[in-house]
Amino acid sequence: MSGTKTAVVGLGSMGFGMALSLARKGFDVAGTDVSAEAVKRFAAHGRAATNVREAATGATVLVVVVVNAAQTRAVLFGPEGAAGALPKGAAVVSCATMSPKDAEALAAEAEGHGLLYLDAPISGGAQRAAEGALTVLASGSDAAFAAAQPALDAMAAKLYRLGDKPGIGAAFKMVNQLLAGVHIAAACEAITFAKRLGLDIGKVYEVITAAAGNSWMFENRVPHILEGDYTPKSAVDIFTKDLGIVLDMSRDTKFPTPIAGQAFQMFMMTAAAGMGRDDDSSVARLYADIAGLELPKRA
Amino acid sequence: MSGTKTAVVGLGSMGFGMALSLARKGFDVAGTDVSAEAVKRFAAHGRAATNVREAATGATVLVVVVVNAAQTRAVLFGPEGAAGALPKGAAVVSCATMSPKDAEALAAEAEGHGLLYLDAPISGGAQRAAEGALTVLASGSDAAFAAAQPALDAMAAKLYRLGDKPGIGAAFKMVNQLLAGVHIAAACEAITFAKRLGLDIGKVYEVITAAAGNSWMFENRVPHILEGDYTPKSAVDIFTKDLGIVLDMSRDTKFPTPIAGQAFQMFMMTAAAGMGRDDDSSVARLYADIAGLELPKRA
Repeated sequence: MSGTKTAVVGLGSMGFGMALSLARKGFDVAGTDVSAEAVKRFAAHGRAATNVREAATGATVLVVVVVNAAQTRAVLFGPEGAAGALPKGAAVVSCATMSPKDAEALAAEAEGHGLLYLDAPISGGAQRAAEGALTVLASGSDAAFAAAQPALDAMAAKLYRLGDKPGIGAAFKMVNQLLAGVHIAAACEAITFAKRLGLDIGKVYEVITAAAGNSWMFENRVPHILEGDYTPKSAVDIFTKDLGIVLDMSRDTKFPTPIAGQAFQMFMMTAAAGMGRDDDSSVARLYADIAGLELPKRA
Repeated sequence: MSGTKTAVVGLGSMGFGMALSLARKGFDVAGTDVSAEAVKRFAAHGRAATNVREAATGATVLVVVVVNAAQTRAVLFGPEGAAGALPKGAAVVSCATMSPKDAEALAAEAEGHGLLYLDAPISGGAQRAAEGALTVLASGSDAAFAAAQPALDAMAAKLYRLGDKPGIGAAFKMVNQLLAGVHIAAACEAITFAKRLGLDIGKVYEVITAAAGNSWMFENRVPHILEGDYTPKSAVDIFTKDLGIVLDMSRDTKFPTPIAGQAFQMFMMTAAAGMGRDDDSSVARLYADIAGLELPKRA
């Protein structure tokens, strides 16, 4: 894809890695972010653009890797948004986690501007983003897939093509987030419960990861607790947001989600206790603080 | 271990497999159960005993594979219990899921009768029981381990030696059950939520099992839902019992377990709706019945 003009908006840990993966595969990548720091860091790898309009100008694919639907809307249709700068027929690859309803609305508006739109939430974390090895849960028209395919191939190890309408990818992502959020909260509840019972929690980790109580999140997050390292790899506030979307969807579709609702409350309590920007395994610190337990401290 | 006299009390799906594994390794196994049917089925593989006392007589190891602490107590110390029939120094291997407090009390009473006691809850399911490939979460004295070791080696692929006091194995098992129960309820909530969103739930299974929302239980139980087969591999009532124990321990130790509490309520609702003896994935049927959704029917 030598020289194909591509833009990445949002150079956080995910977007930065995705922009690098595109550059490595020969795309001519422009990157921008609200943080000047992040833009500067990107300058060694591609065209560092000072705003969305500059990044989007002439790009045939625009990858939007921001936090939510509102930010995606601002990137695309805000006063200095990309919609006015992208050539007709360019593809928007929207990666933020959002409700299917929001994905559908953004897609309709993008199509109104003569753009193609791919609903393409991502999974896999910063390291796999940098390796071009993300999982992408995508839905959209054949034309949108065709236009975005080379960029997707550069960024993803696994591309799920889940349907021909925007919103389906978002729905799959929200089902994943429901489970992920519940599993993090449950892992934090279980490991502090084990501590309360006087068990060696390192041994608990060893036993559970080899037993039927295991989950991807238990295996991935409990080491943070064992090391006492709450540097945010993924923050508590991501899950107040994502489980919040699950609960909004639950209400909209009249479908009860009591387990997700309870997990949401645990993330809310952790955020309320001042740990919203810390690693999401901080829910364990909330349980420990409430019950007067001592978890491992960082070495 | 040719000819070493061993007894197995409880020839349900787990105990039957464990008795077979012992017999295959050359133990002289006596088996008994409250179900005459189960005893009869065992007659082809070992000594079919009509009661506990007969099975226990002369056994150097007694494996108790019943449902809970009360049944274990009855097997050991009831009117026709094993304690009166086992030779001094025989080892009791107690496999039922129970609270650490119950395990400690049973061990103390067994020791009062001159017996060794191993707190040895198991994990792995019927098939691995039959293959001699269980996971055993054991704690107890060196003497109890030494006496039970050959039998444990015949039944288990993984033996965790978790401490020198009965109750520790039970505590590890309860932490596992907390997670297992929450993950089953969350899997059922997520897959029916996906159905409510109009997604292809077979595709959801494929995507989630390759994503960060996965759990051992999601991967293991959701196929029952996809096949519409609620034949009990493990029943809803096992989790009303096990999460009930978690909640009792939570109260006893003044440690809040809100996620487990919510999952417990979902199993209770499923049992209340008449599905207590069906497969624990029936929690999905509860959500579907409440919300008027159609899950796959058995072919």
